[in-house]
Amino acid sequence: VTTQRLAVVDLGSNSFRLVVFTWVDDSWFRLSDEIHEVVRIGEGLEETGVLAKAPMERALETVDLYAHFCRATGIDEVEAVATSAIRDATNRDEFLERAALDVRVLATEEEAFYGYLAAVNSTTLSNGVALDIGGGSMQLTLVKDREARDMRSWPFGAVRMTERFLSREPVKPKHMKALREHIGAALGDVPWLGKGGALAGVGGTVRNLGTAAMLREELPTFGVQGFPLRRKVLDDMIEDFAEMSPAERGQVRGIKPERGDLILAGALVVQAVMEAGGFDSMEVTEAGLREGVFFSRLLKHRDPPLFNDVRRASVRNLAAEYDQDSAHTAHVAELALTMWDALGTGDPVERELLWAAAMLHDIGMSIDYDDHHKHSRYLILNAGLPGFSPRETALIGQMTRFHRKGNPRLGPFAAFGLDGDEELLTRCSAVLRVAEQLERSRDQAVDRVDVRIDDGRVELRLEAHEDVSIARWAAMSEADVFKQAFGRELEISEAPRSPKARPSRARAR
Amino acid sequence: VTTQRLAVVDLGSNSFRLVVFTWVDDSWFRLSDEIHEVVRIGEGLEETGVLAKAPMERALETVDLYAHFCRATGIDEVEAVATSAIRDATNRDEFLERAALDVRVLATEEEAFYGYLAAVNSTTLSNGVALDIGGGSMQLTLVKDREARDMRSWPFGAVRMTERFLSREPVKPKHMKALREHIGAALGDVPWLGKGGALAGVGGTVRNLGTAAMLREELPTFGVQGFPLRRKVLDDMIEDFAEMSPAERGQVRGIKPERGDLILAGALVVQAVMEAGGFDSMEVTEAGLREGVFFSRLLKHRDPPLFNDVRRASVRNLAAEYDQDSAHTAHVAELALTMWDALGTGDPVERELLWAAAMLHDIGMSIDYDDHHKHSRYLILNAGLPGFSPRETALIGQMTRFHRKGNPRLGPFAAFGLDGDEELLTRCSAVLRVAEQLERSRDQAVDRVDVRIDDGRVELRLEAHEDVSIARWAAMSEADVFKQAFGRELEISEAPRSPKARPSRARAR
Repeated sequence: VTTQRLAVVDLGSNSFRLVVFTWVDDSWFRLSDEIHEVVRIGEGLEETGVLAKAPMERALETVDLYAHFCRATGIDEVEAVATSAIRDATNRDEFLERAALDVRVLATEEEAFYGYLAAVNSTTLSNGVALDIGGGSMQLTLVKDREARDMRSWPFGAVRMTERFLSREPVKPKHMKALREHIGAALGDVPWLGKGGALAGVGGTVRNLGTAAMLREELPTFGVQGFPLRRKVLDDMIEDFAEMSPAERGQVRGIKPERGDLILAGALVVQAVMEAGGFDSMEVTEAGLREGVFFSRLLKHRDPPLFNDVRRASVRNLAAEYDQDSAHTAHVAELALTMWDALGTGDPVERELLWAAAMLHDIGMSIDYDDHHKHSRYLILNAGLPGFSPRETALIGQMTRFHRKGNPRLGPFAAFGLDGDEELLTRCSAVLRVAEQLERSRDQAVDRVDVRIDDGRVELRLEAHEDVSIARWAAMSEADVFKQAFGRELEISEAPRSPKARPSRARAR
Repeated sequence: VTTQRLAVVDLGSNSFRLVVFTWVDDSWFRLSDEIHEVVRIGEGLEETGVLAKAPMERALETVDLYAHFCRATGIDEVEAVATSAIRDATNRDEFLERAALDVRVLATEEEAFYGYLAAVNSTTLSNGVALDIGGGSMQLTLVKDREARDMRSWPFGAVRMTERFLSREPVKPKHMKALREHIGAALGDVPWLGKGGALAGVGGTVRNLGTAAMLREELPTFGVQGFPLRRKVLDDMIEDFAEMSPAERGQVRGIKPERGDLILAGALVVQAVMEAGGFDSMEVTEAGLREGVFFSRLLKHRDPPLFNDVRRASVRNLAAEYDQDSAHTAHVAELALTMWDALGTGDPVERELLWAAAMLHDIGMSIDYDDHHKHSRYLILNAGLPGFSPRETALIGQMTRFHRKGNPRLGPFAAFGLDGDEELLTRCSAVLRVAEQLERSRDQAVDRVDVRIDDGRVELRLEAHEDVSIARWAAMSEADVFKQAFGRELEISEAPRSPKARPSRARAR
């Protein structure tokens, strides 16, 4: 097993960021380290066209720090990329020559491509538009069947729009109107906007707006990944922001203080895109340009470099990263799905959530054996599952929380407020628990389970290649939870033993 | 790096337990898996002297399950040990012949030795007595300079004492008195009891009593490891238990339901030991016979198999298990301790807590980079730090929590209620934060820090082998926290550069 590392250095108009990705090919990847500096190299660029002296010096010092960091931590593979501000500055060569790292200046199409890769590899977007807004520029990519069909870029980043339209405080309605009209006019030329599909958003502006919206709606905030930001909520936030000073905006929960002066312009750009495209909602992703650069490296053998299925890739990634006993995990998933298929609602989304919970139920054992069901939930909520919404991630987390103990309940996650979630959780937890108990000895002794429904009761017939009386007895301890979920008595019997033992396992002591 | 595994199967009088330990020699170890069954093989043994039919069958099935489990998970090294109930039963050979594992029946001295190893390798006990109470027997070991000097064993386990004295409900005062006198008389013969020293307690009875006491005192309950159970609190709990039915006792928070009928007898045994030995308090450990068996394997090259220093071993163990960047961690610890030595209180315990926090500050990065300061605390609280009390573990956790963000405060851990803890936390967090910022580039560029105190201000002079202007600037962002902690202004300067660069690091781009 070879662990590889790549440092992506993203020299943006607002901030510089070094992010280290660690991965094992065909197994897992993770963001393992990060340094972030608000450099604002683009300060004043809108007016003068050059990188000013003070921002240039801050920028060079920061690149120096990042270079030190890579040497010190022994990272050989470094991808440093620069976007709009550096690209457009007339004195960019001075910066590039003095920088302590080899910096690749991205063309607008490249920048847009990485934003698109980040969006499509971390959300459910398959047809529609990917929006990427940075400090300097804004990109839109037309997505069909997950492939990029067209890309456009404009200098509509939050730093530039603030400097151009909203630099005078208090902000006046006519300035906001001017900004909106400026963007609206440009977007009017895009033939594929307003033709339906979904919208996914990338970048710090989008993440801050999503987090602020979650807090405003009093939702649990373990992360903004996959959150659907509704147009109505965005409109309300913009109205509030317009009444505030930049310092006050930076105090709004979810908005970072250093972004207080930029967030209004950023929000107006997003609003203009939603308006022009007729989007009611935008799926927020935590991934950004950096992840895009990383994905193009991780998945370089694919063209385009996309996961086949983002949701399944996320679950498998987390399962592999905290791997405990994959034979056990896969078998619990199989048994649980068999029971659910016979007893469940048939809803494919619910089935997928159950599968995810089964795959992840034991990852908490990597923290501590005691209370590992709670640790599994902690890891799921904190590491996140790109492709799933916060509500779905919370449901998966609660299923793992209740896979061995306690009375399944939504708790704080009831705030996501979908009718029937409590019942969904109870159903999935119940079959997961029975499956876990059938696999108590972790040796896949129960080959299959045959589900017979007889009104008032459910009989599970176990097909096994050795004695499974302990599995039966252990699984019967979940009869109460089972009855609560399905309104039926649980019975467990053993099918006549198959004459041939499975060849892969020794039977003798 | 070779990862090794050992399954310890503990066939006790009350419960059977399989515990898997995973370790890398000279690096880390952890409990990685566990199965627990309340078998009560000793049921009825006190009266008849034999293992009864039903308990024997339950026991054999459970051993069978454990054997399956070891085969299925590929564990080759299995140590199955039996204690009092099986040792004393006249029909033990029938059980041993039919059991699916090779079971070693421990002599009383062996059982006592493993309990002693568990206690001395997981607590601060160095002179005094180790108490180990199980379902069948109770052992006391005299400890001098951490070595076992004498061991005694009696059939005073919680199951046996319940059957003999408290089997009739409601429990009457005269039955409790008879139990106490029975034990008191036996302990009167131990010449070394009542001669001072500390008391550490091992076993399920002790753990349940400790947890119940913590909940009764409304303390945060992330674990009972190292909790000092005071005699006064134990006396109060016994008074309450005496008024309850077994079912009610099993409902007391901290007492496991299946232990409701045994806890009163167990508590009376502990009380009798504290009385006879004149102990005001007992240090509770989560380690038990199983850990004792494991320690004798892990530390087999030492005689006796003891860690040199339990507290340092615990910290190093956790740091190695979740290792991130040991050069960085060690350097942060060194810088922080240098500052603390110049500015701190001189209290060696506070110094050790700071060292522990510095060693562990980044372990949360193994969960996720974002919020890793919070994840570090989560891992510390949940994995635990044997040798430290809950209050100390919480302080270490809070220091890591505040090593990069937030205003240091005790939060819920103020409940441990020692005067001055808030100031201690602020002092240690402040030096840890400055040290972390001085090591921002993670390349140990700041070789040393020289602390000069001038009234009203503190000057840190950095000795470095390359440019450290970023480290200076980054560390200055902690000036507020620093002033809050030490009441002095922070100043940072750079000593004249040493002419020779450190040879171990390349300097060129």
